[in-house]
Amino acid sequence: MMNTHLLLIDCPDEKGLVYRITGELWRHDFNIVSNQEFVKSSSNHFFMRTVFAGNGSVNDVINELRKALPTGANIHLAPTEKRPIVVMVTKEAHCLGDLLLRHAYDELPARICAVVGNHDSLAPLVQKFDIPFHYVSHLGREREQHEQEIIGILEQYQPDYLVLAKYMRVLTPQFVAQYPNRIINIHHSFLPAFIGASPYRQAFERGVKIIGATAHIVTDDLDTGPILVQDVLHIDHSYSVADMTQAGHDVEKIVLAKALKLVLEGRVFLQNNQTIIFE
Amino acid sequence: MMNTHLLLIDCPDEKGLVYRITGELWRHDFNIVSNQEFVKSSSNHFFMRTVFAGNGSVNDVINELRKALPTGANIHLAPTEKRPIVVMVTKEAHCLGDLLLRHAYDELPARICAVVGNHDSLAPLVQKFDIPFHYVSHLGREREQHEQEIIGILEQYQPDYLVLAKYMRVLTPQFVAQYPNRIINIHHSFLPAFIGASPYRQAFERGVKIIGATAHIVTDDLDTGPILVQDVLHIDHSYSVADMTQAGHDVEKIVLAKALKLVLEGRVFLQNNQTIIFE
Amino acid sequence: MMNTHLLLIDCPDEKGLVYRITGELWRHDFNIVSNQEFVKSSSNHFFMRTVFAGNGSVNDVINELRKALPTGANIHLAPTEKRPIVVMVTKEAHCLGDLLLRHAYDELPARICAVVGNHDSLAPLVQKFDIPFHYVSHLGREREQHEQEIIGILEQYQPDYLVLAKYMRVLTPQFVAQYPNRIINIHHSFLPAFIGASPYRQAFERGVKIIGATAHIVTDDLDTGPILVQDVLHIDHSYSVADMTQAGHDVEKIVLAKALKLVLEGRVFLQNNQTIIFE
Amino acid sequence: MMNTHLLLIDCPDEKGLVYRITGELWRHDFNIVSNQEFVKSSSNHFFMRTVFAGNGSVNDVINELRKALPTGANIHLAPTEKRPIVVMVTKEAHCLGDLLLRHAYDELPARICAVVGNHDSLAPLVQKFDIPFHYVSHLGREREQHEQEIIGILEQYQPDYLVLAKYMRVLTPQFVAQYPNRIINIHHSFLPAFIGASPYRQAFERGVKIIGATAHIVTDDLDTGPILVQDVLHIDHSYSVADMTQAGHDVEKIVLAKALKLVLEGRVFLQNNQTIIFE
Repeated sequence: MMNTHLLLIDCPDEKGLVYRITGELWRHDFNIVSNQEFVKSSSNHFFMRTVFAGNGSVNDVINELRKALPTGANIHLAPTEKRPIVVMVTKEAHCLGDLLLRHAYDELPARICAVVGNHDSLAPLVQKFDIPFHYVSHLGREREQHEQEIIGILEQYQPDYLVLAKYMRVLTPQFVAQYPNRIINIHHSFLPAFIGASPYRQAFERGVKIIGATAHIVTDDLDTGPILVQDVLHIDHSYSVADMTQAGHDVEKIVLAKALKLVLEGRVFLQNNQTIIFE
Repeated sequence: MMNTHLLLIDCPDEKGLVYRITGELWRHDFNIVSNQEFVKSSSNHFFMRTVFAGNGSVNDVINELRKALPTGANIHLAPTEKRPIVVMVTKEAHCLGDLLLRHAYDELPARICAVVGNHDSLAPLVQKFDIPFHYVSHLGREREQHEQEIIGILEQYQPDYLVLAKYMRVLTPQFVAQYPNRIINIHHSFLPAFIGASPYRQAFERGVKIIGATAHIVTDDLDTGPILVQDVLHIDHSYSVADMTQAGHDVEKIVLAKALKLVLEGRVFLQNNQTIIFE
Repeated sequence: MMNTHLLLIDCPDEKGLVYRITGELWRHDFNIVSNQEFVKSSSNHFFMRTVFAGNGSVNDVINELRKALPTGANIHLAPTEKRPIVVMVTKEAHCLGDLLLRHAYDELPARICAVVGNHDSLAPLVQKFDIPFHYVSHLGREREQHEQEIIGILEQYQPDYLVLAKYMRVLTPQFVAQYPNRIINIHHSFLPAFIGASPYRQAFERGVKIIGATAHIVTDDLDTGPILVQDVLHIDHSYSVADMTQAGHDVEKIVLAKALKLVLEGRVFLQNNQTIIFE
Repeated sequence: MMNTHLLLIDCPDEKGLVYRITGELWRHDFNIVSNQEFVKSSSNHFFMRTVFAGNGSVNDVINELRKALPTGANIHLAPTEKRPIVVMVTKEAHCLGDLLLRHAYDELPARICAVVGNHDSLAPLVQKFDIPFHYVSHLGREREQHEQEIIGILEQYQPDYLVLAKYMRVLTPQFVAQYPNRIINIHHSFLPAFIGASPYRQAFERGVKIIGATAHIVTDDLDTGPILVQDVLHIDHSYSVADMTQAGHDVEKIVLAKALKLVLEGRVFLQNNQTIIFE
């Protein structure tokens, strides 16, 4: 029985990187199960995701790689067990419900530790699945105070990722800085179209024939973080704003679940506000 | 052997419209082949597209309908033969080539009278298909002078529609006014995202996972006319700007051909910068 | 405040049908909200779905229509309230869970009265949503005996439709005859490909690049009833049978939910093992 | 200025393969531009596609690799210049026309040497693009005699691949054996559905809601060779057989062009009637 490990490396490109990396694995008697590399030519940067198996010392490999690779290389051994996450919501049930079901039936490579809502209407749904729900109303609180309260709750769970499953409040840069590149949002449009409020109203007015959804990493700039997954569905003139909203739910929940899977399986690299994704 | 006719009606909605319209057809011994209606609730406006067959007097029906329907009703008997169109191009061949092939093999419900280009590089392609090509360079001409020259050429063909098959110059409101709601454009993005120059460069920088194309009616406002057809294709991080441009060609040519078919078959109504399309 | 009604008519095509039908509505002071017609040319059969509003006597309209339309016309006033349904399952949770969530959050135009399973593993999920779960094991029973037991349960609920949400047993013609054209199934492939057992195994062996799902009405012939909705997703060589199965879940649940919506909103006509669907 | 090379390797999987291969490249001072590997677990077989650049001796690398890799490894240096192909057709223009346009505008990584038709109706189209058209009627000839005549023509062009762009005759195993794994076909359905004659008629009768197209490698068994690309489009009940046929053209031509690109760029490996495709 062999242990399996996931290695993520990125660094400036130079000759012989794959050779050096696979050499260390070879010398420590590891077998490569799968291997994906990409050199982003616009930045001349190298990305590699390797799954390898064996009973050698992983720490030794990592130490050797630090010597063998260029200074500043990111060398990261990703956990292969299920990652702890916290889901944040407001009032809409479709994305949360889908995540809870996948979680309950082992279709999600994560452990949902808790759900935090700024409304309490989704508490009964969460409790059906025996997961703690924390209601932190934003009413009568300053934005910073509200976020501090949430951070207090998050600290007890130490989640690897926060998932905004239709959390309808803008986060401050201070909050985002607590979870750098670790907050995943589902946006109700095909970004960069229809940034901002009432996207389906905007889409209706514009008379579009497609509506989409975008899952992305949250950065300081609202709606402009690195894109993980996008998908669309076709609509026609008979769709009201309500029909478009309803239809959008299906694409949103599928897109969010797919993005989460990619992130949680260690398939996503970030660079220059873009994602490199090894599917 | 019966004649077939296409009737397009739109007017403010009121009770009994379908009954009145189908009554006139019945009294003139026409049979309805197909019939589509829609009431746009946001404007309370009625749209109807009817194909009917028979040997009665169509003019009599139209006259009776003018009496029977609300003042200001648009009652339009659409031609069922192939409509004359002129295609305008710059340098890219993919949309033009696709239209020429469909035209040659009877997959386009239109007669391409001529192609006008502001470069001459596509002349050989057009001439292969025995269609006149007019080269009207914009170099050393004022915009208005250039357009006047084009209008002079168009006049000899009297096209029902102008098709901008990657015509890369902005048209003046004066030019557009000559062909109100009769100019069809293919835009190299999923509007309203990436309006303006270098859309694939913008899309690359933004790191999108989907690229799209939009066919729309041209109005004064660049890139904001009523949308006819949109479609997308999935891409990933490995696409360079050139790859995205190349991939975009496939979706552009399919979207433009589909939009043209809808317009030429009299399936499109316009209202409030939106389209109602009876497929 | 006006009442809204849904009228479904189909009959052999002849001249003046729309005029006659809309005339009766007009004479009883009803306003047409939406109207869709289709004449299937291969069978010369007329289909019409009309939503109309007003305070006249609907029974009078129906009676007049029976006189005005050809003998044998199907004239059906569909209920507009939520229809009672029973869901049948085996072990897989993804379709059932999706239906329960949509039901709980009012995204399904139906009332789920109960769930029947030939295994008991989904009982806890159903009970979370306060819906009765009936476990009817097929073990140690003849097929007919097993089905009789199910029918006994169904009788107490009088469902309009049965929904097979991954119910993995073949129904006898006797059972199907109890619910003619009222059983909806989700099939784990793009029918008619991969009929029969282990479709994902078959798809894997065949090396397909797309997997699909088909929702259809159940008839005596397994997997060959009228098709309601189909959709697909793209896969590649890296998918194992397990990956394909997992990926198939997403498309299955979306396709089933869409099909149910169409059926429950009275948008589906059946003829010659085909569906006419007014979306 | 460095030369770029494309290396394709497949062999039974064992430890250290990537290390050994990249080591040879490193020792000959080559830089890896892109690298993709896959181990098919069901057959424990290793596949690798490497683009590398440098001015070392490629022959030396190949010779060293033959020593370093397991016996029976396929080590193949693929040509990077445009490959010669011959297109075979019957009467339909849409796929051929699309290929001719892409060829004329440098969107196809191939050189179309000639077109062979068993009807002469497409000769004028081919000649517009200054490419030889060979009319080889099958009328009054035995199947083997007809194929011998075609082989005689093909010999003068020595094509790397034959592309069946709607060539509507079945090829004998003897013919296929002349071009093992080098004949690409576009099939007018989503295989394995609707194998055989009149697929659109079959699809119409079955009432499907999607039609597809499949590009595949031709083997002895008609319609069962390894699948390269599949795609679909949505249709509804209003489509006649003719409409479905027409609509199918768009998806066929896109699918064939995409498959050709993958094959011609050396992205396709074959094993056990399946494809491994490095996109």
